[in-house]
Amino acid sequence: MKKFEIITEADARAIDVGATVELAKGGHVTPLAKDTLAARRVTVIPAGSADASLPGDLAPVSAIRRIAIGNDHTGIALKKALVQHLRGQAIAVTDTGTDQTDPVDYPDIAAAVARMVARGEADAGIVIDGAGIGSAIAANKIRGVRAAMCTDETIARYSREHNGANVMTLGSSLLSGHDAAIRIVDVWMGTPMKEARYIRRLLKIRRLEQNPD
Amino acid sequence: MKKFEIITEADARAIDVGATVELAKGGHVTPLAKDTLAARRVTVIPAGSADASLPGDLAPVSAIRRIAIGNDHTGIALKKALVQHLRGQAIAVTDTGTDQTDPVDYPDIAAAVARMVARGEADAGIVIDGAGIGSAIAANKIRGVRAAMCTDETIARYSREHNGANVMTLGSSLLSGHDAAIRIVDVWMGTPMKEARYIRRLLKIRRLEQNPD
Repeated sequence: MKKFEIITEADARAIDVGATVELAKGGHVTPLAKDTLAARRVTVIPAGSADASLPGDLAPVSAIRRIAIGNDHTGIALKKALVQHLRGQAIAVTDTGTDQTDPVDYPDIAAAVARMVARGEADAGIVIDGAGIGSAIAANKIRGVRAAMCTDETIARYSREHNGANVMTLGSSLLSGHDAAIRIVDVWMGTPMKEARYIRRLLKIRRLEQNPD
Repeated sequence: MKKFEIITEADARAIDVGATVELAKGGHVTPLAKDTLAARRVTVIPAGSADASLPGDLAPVSAIRRIAIGNDHTGIALKKALVQHLRGQAIAVTDTGTDQTDPVDYPDIAAAVARMVARGEADAGIVIDGAGIGSAIAANKIRGVRAAMCTDETIARYSREHNGANVMTLGSSLLSGHDAAIRIVDVWMGTPMKEARYIRRLLKIRRLEQNPD
């Protein structure tokens, strides 16, 4: 990684688009360089901090021990099957409902699960609605949550490995059965996030949460 | 919401761009007014069918005329194919890049497209990365954006009809080819959001945006 004592506009232009560079302690970035760095999407981090510069709470919990699970009226049977499966693996499961067949709005159930994950009351969350699309949209509105609609095992694995998903959503009407859903959940929970280059991108998601307009 | 018995071309010009108006039962829209309404992206609904308590700007733009499209380094070829297809249908396309093969972080490209949609500079957005997962997470962090990862035509249709998606994300490495992607995009763009019960749920998503912690 390139290291700078000072970053001028000329330096900024020479840095690769999208790169991350180090700035020495007490170092300086000129105002014009700041604009160029932003335009080139360069990330400047304190020297020597490289991976250590990444906040420790960015990557999702690797070994999931506590799961929050919620569902709308279409997902009761699937939710029950998953709760049984997870408890059978000694996972602590908080079931936020519903167990009623009256229609429930997906933003409500997604928010209940997402807020538990964001507050650290659960290591990860699962939300079930008809297609899993709406719950993913709603859960992602909560700061600190990265929700992925997991339609198959490949997406489930990618969403953890590459995107550090801490909430998965499932479509009760789109999955081919409870066994298929259980396989997707197992892959998702069993895939950790390891690579620093992927974790660094989560910092950019956090910045969007801080600047959502 | 404004209500009309008849909408003339002069009326159509006076309606706010992107607005939704009511047409009385047996009401009439002149042929010239139809063109102007389409150009101004005005949605005309039957009188009494709207839930008066719902803000008029909740549902996504029905007749998409302006698209913002962005992609990471894996999606250049697919982006070009989609731009050509969309322009061939007289859609105004803003291509936010990249056209370079240097790695680009998905939160950056997703945010560029999402902010254009949130600001009303585009009616809808398309973001392409390797799997489409990360871009959906990142785009949903922007207020006013509902982003759905569209892996097939069914999800594409649901995401508009049920969830009012105004941004779609595509996975360049997961789709089976440009033709498949074009079909997914066509279905997505051609599906309006109509039902008040679904639109009402978007209000709950907006409340999560206002209260993300």
